[in-house]
Amino acid sequence: MFNNFTFHNPVKLIFGKGTIAQLPKNIAAGSKIMLTYGGGSIFKNGVYDQVTEALKGYDIIEFGGIEANPTYETLMKAVELAKKENVNFLLSVGGGSVLDGTKFISAAIPYEGEDHWELVLNSSKIGEVVPFGDVLTLPATGSEMNYYAVISKKETKEKKGMGGFKLYPKFSILDPETTYSLPKKQVANGLADAFTHVMEQYMTYPVGAMIQDRFAESILQTLIEVAPDAMNKEDDYESRANYMWAATVALNGLINLGVPTDWATHQVGHELTAFHGIDHARTLAIVLPHLLTYKKDKKRGKLIQYGKRVWNLLGSDDEIVDMAIRKTAEFYESLGIPTKASSYGEINEETVKMLKQRFVERGMNFGENADITPDDIAKIMEMSMA
Amino acid sequence: MFNNFTFHNPVKLIFGKGTIAQLPKNIAAGSKIMLTYGGGSIFKNGVYDQVTEALKGYDIIEFGGIEANPTYETLMKAVELAKKENVNFLLSVGGGSVLDGTKFISAAIPYEGEDHWELVLNSSKIGEVVPFGDVLTLPATGSEMNYYAVISKKETKEKKGMGGFKLYPKFSILDPETTYSLPKKQVANGLADAFTHVMEQYMTYPVGAMIQDRFAESILQTLIEVAPDAMNKEDDYESRANYMWAATVALNGLINLGVPTDWATHQVGHELTAFHGIDHARTLAIVLPHLLTYKKDKKRGKLIQYGKRVWNLLGSDDEIVDMAIRKTAEFYESLGIPTKASSYGEINEETVKMLKQRFVERGMNFGENADITPDDIAKIMEMSMA
Repeated sequence: MFNNFTFHNPVKLIFGKGTIAQLPKNIAAGSKIMLTYGGGSIFKNGVYDQVTEALKGYDIIEFGGIEANPTYETLMKAVELAKKENVNFLLSVGGGSVLDGTKFISAAIPYEGEDHWELVLNSSKIGEVVPFGDVLTLPATGSEMNYYAVISKKETKEKKGMGGFKLYPKFSILDPETTYSLPKKQVANGLADAFTHVMEQYMTYPVGAMIQDRFAESILQTLIEVAPDAMNKEDDYESRANYMWAATVALNGLINLGVPTDWATHQVGHELTAFHGIDHARTLAIVLPHLLTYKKDKKRGKLIQYGKRVWNLLGSDDEIVDMAIRKTAEFYESLGIPTKASSYGEINEETVKMLKQRFVERGMNFGENADITPDDIAKIMEMSMA
Repeated sequence: MFNNFTFHNPVKLIFGKGTIAQLPKNIAAGSKIMLTYGGGSIFKNGVYDQVTEALKGYDIIEFGGIEANPTYETLMKAVELAKKENVNFLLSVGGGSVLDGTKFISAAIPYEGEDHWELVLNSSKIGEVVPFGDVLTLPATGSEMNYYAVISKKETKEKKGMGGFKLYPKFSILDPETTYSLPKKQVANGLADAFTHVMEQYMTYPVGAMIQDRFAESILQTLIEVAPDAMNKEDDYESRANYMWAATVALNGLINLGVPTDWATHQVGHELTAFHGIDHARTLAIVLPHLLTYKKDKKRGKLIQYGKRVWNLLGSDDEIVDMAIRKTAEFYESLGIPTKASSYGEINEETVKMLKQRFVERGMNFGENADITPDDIAKIMEMSMA
């Protein structure tokens, strides 16, 4: 039976065409706002103009240049600027990386400790935060409706998650039209990221959580169904809207209520990005199908359920297990994302050694049964490299 | 395409065995609490003891006797008592009726107008409220995670909905074990009520809202699947937990995001309860199957989708439409709830006349296309009485 749980998600999620205009209804008049963004795509796709138009009359400063996999080093510059300027509201405009970075900034501004990296290493140190909201332009991470952030440190090649109730956005504005200008590769990555989030909260062992399971399957089916149009028709509102909403509910705390989860794929993926700079979503595709094969006996019950319900597979249970894993790999491949580490030139035997070392240092196992050891991770990587 | 929407549901939902013990973590120390409850079942099933044990040290008064279909007349007595005793927190212990009544009390205590019934007739009059939480013992109405309440007035035989952001509970505690002592008839009613809530947000016309549709179908499938065990095995935690969580997500604002809805069944059902005192859930079963038959051309697209996905029906589209409606009626019947008005002795030609008159007075049509007139409602009732 599924475990006890608490669901408490106060994010105001504002979804649809033209909703950027609702910004002033959601930020107190007189706020001193720091606008955070990434590499400048918001200037090309009209989002910056929409935001500044909506925020006429507010006192605004800007901090751009937050990179994909936002770094502590960059973000601390934003913290300094925000303190100097007495910023009291942060508005993230961009994708999950900008938003994750903004979450860190929000906690780091009031932090009085000496080393702000501690906020990443130890989420219990998160105290007061500067309130923040976001305009999301890239559906993928689910950060818009959860309290997690993933932050990297260049100096030590680390990439780590932080989280806590105070890191929920006050509001998130999701206008599917802001995704029209995304490069196809980013849409593919977003679909893969969202798909993997669901799989990691679902593909464990059955505990009779019927709603959680069926909601997870609903999201997977939706992502599979919309992927071709979302990828290939850049101004198709329907597929972009469904993709965007699917990515949000994939990681807003709804499908993992009381159920076991297996975040090993994300854990390994973060290290691959930290070592080699490979796109986050691509690192997940390198790991998940091989992890499923390696753990197919332990995940058998759920693999069969997934094969039947999500992929409508017929056959013996053994056949369904294997086909379900193959279908999973094929889904990533259909997005143009290779699922073999051997397709990524950066990954070699040295990578596997470093990976194993990182997991040995952490001194804990991963997976829903806490039985994925550093050795297992090395074996999964070797399967991916074969 | 589905419409723009805002999702903002700040309820802290605490779910599972033994969670009543978490009450003190969720009510400020020193609060003056008014415990509200119904006919006294909480004394027999141990819930009252668990609640008072958890709340040792708080200053508590009690107001019992809130009836099914809570009445303005009863609730105003609670308002007087709460004002006299300077209550600053309300704790509803019971089912949806007690909770709905508590929502009214919370808004009515600070209300300064002359006629508190105005709060029901015109939700914009809801101002400040006394904060409240609940321990839910009967899964059905979804009130634990939404901001609606349905209140009746004895004097005029009225039953009406009120709602507003301030009527979200601060927290809701759902322990499936508290349902073990429910009479079978109440479990049946709860399953029927939750099922109908989903149908009224889903059975309209398709707008390409893939997540909303699939989540709705997930809840319907779960209710259908757990119904036999939930009905017949009074201490089966798994079926009770799934039923309880299904009833919550059936009406917490998730499945109706941006999609058309058709609340005609509830509208008619409320009148049938107001006239004759028939159980709420039973009034829904009297209406919905016949409404679906009457409107089967307008609802055709969704009926086919529902038939295929929820009931796994095969056949021609025409056959699936008819079978899907029949399956719906059979589901109610399987709960021991008749779907023909003719099975309820109270309903007669006079009822239909009064019903029609009520809807004429409202001066508006119902249904997702606003094309269900008072005449249509009379015809649907006649189908049910045939």
